[in-house]
Amino acid sequence: MISKLIDGIVDKKAPVVVGLDPNLKFIPPHLLKEAVDEKGETLEAAADAIFRFNKAIVDATYDLIPAVKPQIAMYEQFGIPGLVAYKETLDYCHEKGLVVIADVKRGDIGSTSESYAIAHLGEVKVGDNACRPFDADFATVNPYLGTDGVKPFVDVCNRSDKGIFVLVKTSNPSSGEFQDQTIGGGAASEDAEELSRLEGADVAAGRPLFELVADKVREWGEDSMDGAYSNVGAVVGATYPGQGEIARRLMPHSYILVPGYGAQGGKASDLKVFFNKDGLGAIVNSSRGIIAAYTKEPYKDRFDEYHFADASREAVKDMLEDINSALSS
Amino acid sequence: MISKLIDGIVDKKAPVVVGLDPNLKFIPPHLLKEAVDEKGETLEAAADAIFRFNKAIVDATYDLIPAVKPQIAMYEQFGIPGLVAYKETLDYCHEKGLVVIADVKRGDIGSTSESYAIAHLGEVKVGDNACRPFDADFATVNPYLGTDGVKPFVDVCNRSDKGIFVLVKTSNPSSGEFQDQTIGGGAASEDAEELSRLEGADVAAGRPLFELVADKVREWGEDSMDGAYSNVGAVVGATYPGQGEIARRLMPHSYILVPGYGAQGGKASDLKVFFNKDGLGAIVNSSRGIIAAYTKEPYKDRFDEYHFADASREAVKDMLEDINSALSS
Repeated sequence: MISKLIDGIVDKKAPVVVGLDPNLKFIPPHLLKEAVDEKGETLEAAADAIFRFNKAIVDATYDLIPAVKPQIAMYEQFGIPGLVAYKETLDYCHEKGLVVIADVKRGDIGSTSESYAIAHLGEVKVGDNACRPFDADFATVNPYLGTDGVKPFVDVCNRSDKGIFVLVKTSNPSSGEFQDQTIGGGAASEDAEELSRLEGADVAAGRPLFELVADKVREWGEDSMDGAYSNVGAVVGATYPGQGEIARRLMPHSYILVPGYGAQGGKASDLKVFFNKDGLGAIVNSSRGIIAAYTKEPYKDRFDEYHFADASREAVKDMLEDINSALSS
Repeated sequence: MISKLIDGIVDKKAPVVVGLDPNLKFIPPHLLKEAVDEKGETLEAAADAIFRFNKAIVDATYDLIPAVKPQIAMYEQFGIPGLVAYKETLDYCHEKGLVVIADVKRGDIGSTSESYAIAHLGEVKVGDNACRPFDADFATVNPYLGTDGVKPFVDVCNRSDKGIFVLVKTSNPSSGEFQDQTIGGGAASEDAEELSRLEGADVAAGRPLFELVADKVREWGEDSMDGAYSNVGAVVGATYPGQGEIARRLMPHSYILVPGYGAQGGKASDLKVFFNKDGLGAIVNSSRGIIAAYTKEPYKDRFDEYHFADASREAVKDMLEDINSALSS
């Protein structure tokens, strides 16, 4: 699946993904009003407005971009109707030829992770009928539970030619609280040392936790190569270019999904370190910066709420120029 | 909300929660057949069979237990119909007076975590109408993204009198891979040290990561007291009693949700360390051991697939006796 994503990136000269994270506060009032007039002030109305909003943005941008990244939390907050809109969004993006990265950040113990992997990337049999519950192309995965929490996702990817991006170093302000903790050395209690030995935990003295996770991502992806890159990628925030440079080196064959550009503060000039010498290796996400462009400078004076999708198209073009010129400088 | 859970535990003398994790392989064939006869080999049929299965088990056990813990992955794997069955299960358990712990292990950057918190514990406004999307009583939360990923859950809990259990030390074999890594000391790169300083990351030299997470759980829960305990609890696996003892000490006011008893290998004799001297402070989960009891010794000779719920009731009684006698010894 990563080779399909790379083809899209190369064809469209667009190492970017648009985050479809529709919060009601970004939805133009007329869209919500139409839905509420029809369905009342209900979750169904919110979900309806969200899908119409997404569809307009996809229609206005799909020829410019290789992929979208719906953030499932934004749909879950509208319950079952919200998740119906999520599924409709995935299907519509597939119709338009886009690769879909499901930002679900799932992760659990082995047998449960397998169920999550099936839900978002695989198929489940009911009798003799193989059903594809959500059927995204990639999913994001939380590594806190270790190898047996991640491996079931890798296995499902290998069966179905799908991919994952494992959280290595996230873009948020407090991501360092655990992810940057330096591992090793110190006067560990005997119990903890003994347990570590019993469990065969790696020793990685003097390195931050996220580097150990990056090492594991490289290992997890070794049997999932699809061309020059692995179907097992990583998430590293644009807000931490220093860690991005290290992560790039530790996982040479992993694509890095880079959130945090734009609204969260990541700058195009910081992005170069996330890419390999082949010009590949990273895909940069923007969510609010694109989908809510009509509410923000420099677009809000040129586009009103009825032209929100046109504003999103302009914002994608500007993002592409910003990133491509930074990468070629 | 934790005081409501404690009342149930005390009234029923039952520090246990039944995990409603229905895999199709545990569903008695006649239940699935009835659903398939009606709805074909579809996700809808699977979801229908799951809800009927859950309902029968809840009917057979609700008077013995204070709470249930549906694992949402098992429902997500059947797509939208599966999530409808999940919501129906939550509502039915509430009708029967049970506290519902949503095992969702969500966690993301701040604004996104808020959406997850709203989805599972809070309410969302559509116009002037406040809707409760899933409306569980507790949710499990993954801490890998740090304070700003967890705090929105705490805020929603404080608004709505709900609670969370944060993953501290999980029950699976490879949980030690990251969670047991010793923090601190070592020859960290200057970059990483500098970054840690900038981000105000805690220094916790010589202690495993899960202890640092436990410290944070205590902090996160300080403003969420509900009687003698906080609405912010922790998950620590029964399979790691050594770490359970440490976690108990580090988070005196946090309830510990203890998975891993039974099918995963945790023994009643190991559970005492998870409890405080007041006899409270922990609630032990069993999933497969209860819901699939009719397929396992010593129940499978006494109960056929048509009496699966009776087997579950027996298994709950046996679990209660096993745990209560271990705790009082």
